[in-house]
Amino acid sequence: MSLSITKRSQDYAKWYTDVVQKAELADYGPVKGTMVIRPYGYAIWENIRNIADRMFKATGHVNAYFPLFIPESYMKREAEHVAGFAPECAVVTHGGGKKLTEPLYIRPTSETIIWAMYKRWIKSYRDLPLLINQWANVVRWEMRTRLFLRTTEFLWQEGHTAHADAREAEEEAQRILEIYRQLAEDYLAMPVLVGQKSESQKFAGAVRTYAIEAMMGDKKALQAGTSHFLGQNFAKAFDVTFLNRENQLEYVWATSWGVSTRLIGGIIMAHGDDKGLILPPRVAPYQVVIVPIWKNDSEKSQINELVARLTEALQAQQIRFYYDDSEQNTPGWKFNHWEMRGTPLRIEIGPREATQNKIVIVRRDQLTRQMLPLDAAVEQIAPLLDTFHRDLFQKALQFRTENTVTVENYHQFCQAIEEGRFVQAFWGGDTAAEARIQEETKATIRVIPFEQNQKGTCFYTGKSADKIVVFAKAY
Amino acid sequence: MSLSITKRSQDYAKWYTDVVQKAELADYGPVKGTMVIRPYGYAIWENIRNIADRMFKATGHVNAYFPLFIPESYMKREAEHVAGFAPECAVVTHGGGKKLTEPLYIRPTSETIIWAMYKRWIKSYRDLPLLINQWANVVRWEMRTRLFLRTTEFLWQEGHTAHADAREAEEEAQRILEIYRQLAEDYLAMPVLVGQKSESQKFAGAVRTYAIEAMMGDKKALQAGTSHFLGQNFAKAFDVTFLNRENQLEYVWATSWGVSTRLIGGIIMAHGDDKGLILPPRVAPYQVVIVPIWKNDSEKSQINELVARLTEALQAQQIRFYYDDSEQNTPGWKFNHWEMRGTPLRIEIGPREATQNKIVIVRRDQLTRQMLPLDAAVEQIAPLLDTFHRDLFQKALQFRTENTVTVENYHQFCQAIEEGRFVQAFWGGDTAAEARIQEETKATIRVIPFEQNQKGTCFYTGKSADKIVVFAKAY
Repeated sequence: MSLSITKRSQDYAKWYTDVVQKAELADYGPVKGTMVIRPYGYAIWENIRNIADRMFKATGHVNAYFPLFIPESYMKREAEHVAGFAPECAVVTHGGGKKLTEPLYIRPTSETIIWAMYKRWIKSYRDLPLLINQWANVVRWEMRTRLFLRTTEFLWQEGHTAHADAREAEEEAQRILEIYRQLAEDYLAMPVLVGQKSESQKFAGAVRTYAIEAMMGDKKALQAGTSHFLGQNFAKAFDVTFLNRENQLEYVWATSWGVSTRLIGGIIMAHGDDKGLILPPRVAPYQVVIVPIWKNDSEKSQINELVARLTEALQAQQIRFYYDDSEQNTPGWKFNHWEMRGTPLRIEIGPREATQNKIVIVRRDQLTRQMLPLDAAVEQIAPLLDTFHRDLFQKALQFRTENTVTVENYHQFCQAIEEGRFVQAFWGGDTAAEARIQEETKATIRVIPFEQNQKGTCFYTGKSADKIVVFAKAY
Repeated sequence: MSLSITKRSQDYAKWYTDVVQKAELADYGPVKGTMVIRPYGYAIWENIRNIADRMFKATGHVNAYFPLFIPESYMKREAEHVAGFAPECAVVTHGGGKKLTEPLYIRPTSETIIWAMYKRWIKSYRDLPLLINQWANVVRWEMRTRLFLRTTEFLWQEGHTAHADAREAEEEAQRILEIYRQLAEDYLAMPVLVGQKSESQKFAGAVRTYAIEAMMGDKKALQAGTSHFLGQNFAKAFDVTFLNRENQLEYVWATSWGVSTRLIGGIIMAHGDDKGLILPPRVAPYQVVIVPIWKNDSEKSQINELVARLTEALQAQQIRFYYDDSEQNTPGWKFNHWEMRGTPLRIEIGPREATQNKIVIVRRDQLTRQMLPLDAAVEQIAPLLDTFHRDLFQKALQFRTENTVTVENYHQFCQAIEEGRFVQAFWGGDTAAEARIQEETKATIRVIPFEQNQKGTCFYTGKSADKIVVFAKAY
C-alpha cells in the first residue's frame, strides 16, 4: 500500500481521512456512517479507556452495563431530551421475526434507561451518592459523517450519578470536568479550554453543560468531552425520589458526562503532520519502534544481541515497544511506515552502532537524530518520552495562543472567524443573537470560561457585559 | 432489603434468580429479556475480561471493533448462518426519522460483517494470519430468558481469525479451546469437559465446533465457551481470497470463538449455596472483606490501628479487599451480606483480637473459623486464597464425577437422564437418532471428548461404535 497522503495544507479534510486510513486506525463499515476501529486505532482507545477508567475508579465510581434498547415511551419522558435525541435515533421495529408492540430506540445516550433503573434502586439517602459509569456503544443517525469525529455508532463512556443535593451534584459535574481536562492535557497532550456551554449548546435535558474544547490543526474547535449538571430533570421524569435524613421525600439530583472515540480524532488533528500521525507517548500503542539495519547474517546477529539488551531494559521500565525485524521490508519503508503511525521514538541500529554499542534515537515530532551509547540511552528514553509529551503539548498550546484573538466589534469578529481563529470577546447577547451569528459566520460559542471578573462591552449587541466567551467554528 | 433466599434444594431456578438479585449482580431491564449488569456483577465480568484479554494478547491476538449493524444482504450470504441466526435477530427499519432502504440486523455474532471487512484487508499470505478479537454486545431475540444465562442482549468476546491453511486454522481453534479450559478451570474453579460438538449442536456456518462444558449445581450442563473451525465457508460467502506463496489465489481459512457474560451464571451455579454466592478468588471483586466488631470509640481506634497494618499488607500483595466499617449495619448483618455476595474470606476483628494482635479468618465455602496472629495471617492469606480456589475446583469436580454415569442401553440412559446426571455412552447414532433422544428425554450430546481409542456398542442403535459421548440436559 502506498503511504503517500494529501498534504495537510492542501486539503485538511482529505489529509485527515488519508491519515486515518493509511495509519490503519479505522475504516468505514458497510452501513453508511458506521466505523470499523482497526487494531492500531483500538489500541489507542484501550489506552485512553484504561487511563480514564483508573481516574474514575480513584474518585469512587464503579462500572455497570445497561441495555442497548430503550422503549419509545421512556425516550419521551423528558421533553427536551426526546426533542434533542429522538430525531437522530435508530429504531428497532422487529425482533425474533415479529413486529414489536412498542418500537425500541437504540441508545443515543442512556439517561432514560438508567434513571428508570435508579427508580428501583434508590430509596433513601443511604443509597446516595450512586456513582456509576458505563463503557458502551451508542448510535446517533448522522447525515454527514467523518471517522472518529462523527459516526453513526461510536464507543464512549457515560457516567450517570445520583446525589442527595444540588451542591454535591454540581461538584461532581466539575470534578469530572477536571478529570477530562487532565485526560486531554496530561495524557493526550491536547490543551483544552474549560468552561460552561451556552444555553443553545447545552445537552438536551441538562440544566448546565460543561465542556473541554480543543483547537485542531485547522484552527477549528473540537468539543472533546462534556459534563452535565442535570438538576432534577430526569429524577422528575422518572419519578425518582429518596427519603432524606429528615425523613422527607425529595427528588434526586443528577449528573451525566462522557468522552468518546472522538478523542482519537482530536489526537490526530491536534498533533499530526504531513508525514502522518504523531502520537502522544502516554497513549501510543508503541512508544518506541526499533528498526534494525543489516546487510548480512553476521551484522544481524550482532545487532540482535544489542537489541536483546535494549528490549530487556525497555521491558523493565514498562516502555511499550515494537521490534520491527521483518525481512520483507527495507529500513526506509519501515521508517515511513512508523512515521505514518506516529510512534514517538524510533531507534535505529545498524552495524556501525552495534560495533560501537550505540543506538540512534529519532524523534517523530522533530525528526531529529541523536546517537547515544546504549547504557545512557536506556536511561534517557523514559525522560525523553516525558519531554516529547511536554513539547507536543506546548506546541499545540502555542498554536492555539497564536490563533486566538480578542475582538471588540462584529466586523473584527467576522474577519477573525473568516481567518479561522478562536475569538474571545465580551458577550451580552441572547440565544437568538447567537443563532444569527452562527447563521452568518458558522461560529458558535464554544465555552464560557470559569472565573471571570471583568466587565466590558458586548462585541455584538453593544450592551455592557460581564462575560468573555470564546467563539469558533467547530467540528 | 431482606437477604433471605429460596433454598437451592427447594427450587433451583428460584434460588438462582434470588442470588442474582440479592447479591446485586444483575437486574432485568425494562425491555423483556434484557439485563442490567449491576456494579458487583460487572466487577466480576471486568476480572474475567482482563484475564481472558491477557491470554488472547499473549497468544498474538489484537482487539478491534466492528459495527453493530449488519445489512440484511450480508446476513444472507452464508446459507446455514442466516438460517441459524436470522430468526432470532432484532431488526432496525428506521433511522434518523426515515424508513431505511435496507433493514439492518443487530449483530447476533459478527462473522458476516467481519468477513466483509477482511475482504478489503486480506490480499496476500503476508496479511495472514489475522488474529482479531472484539469485546462487544450482541443481541439474540430469546423467548425464554434467564439473567446471565440467556438474555436478549449480552456481553461477550468474539475472536475471528483468518489463516493461510486449514491446519493452522484448526490449531488456532484448539489453542483457544485450551485457553477457555484454563479460564474456566484455573480462574473460575469450574471443571469442564472439553471436546467437539455433534453435527446438530454445532455453530451455524461452522465445519466443526469445539466446546467447554460444565456441570452446574442442579447437574445440568452449561456450554461455557465455543471455538469454531469455519473452514472456508465465510471466505467463500464473502469472496475472500489471498495470493499464496506460489502466487495462486486461494480462499482464506477461518475460526471464530467466544465466551460471554454467561460465565457469571456458570460461577453462580457451579459454586453457590443456600447462603448465596461463593466466588472463585481469582475473579472475586473482593477476595477479602474485613468486618470490625466494636462497642465504643476506644475499641474502634484500637481495631482501626490493627486494620491499618492489615490492609497495608494486603495492598502490598495486591489482594483485593473491602473494609466494611459502615456504622449503619451490625456485624451480623455484614456477615450475611458478604456471605450472600460470596467473598471468599472474611476477617473479623473484635476488641479481644485487637488486644491480642490477632484476627479471625472465616472461609466462605466451609464457614470454618481460624484465629491467627496478624503477622502469620498476612502471610497465609494469599496461599489460603489459592487453597480456596483448589478446594472449590475439587468440590465441583467431585460433584461432576459422582453425577456422571456410564450406560449401555437406552433404558439405563433414560433413567440416568431422569435422575439428572451426565451420561457417558458409546454412540453410533446419526443426527436423526440424536433428535429423537432429545425429543424423548430433553438430553443432547454435550461433547464428544478428544482422544478416544476404545470400541464398543452404541447404547441406542446397538451398532458398533468407536466414540464415547456425553449426554445431558443443558441450559
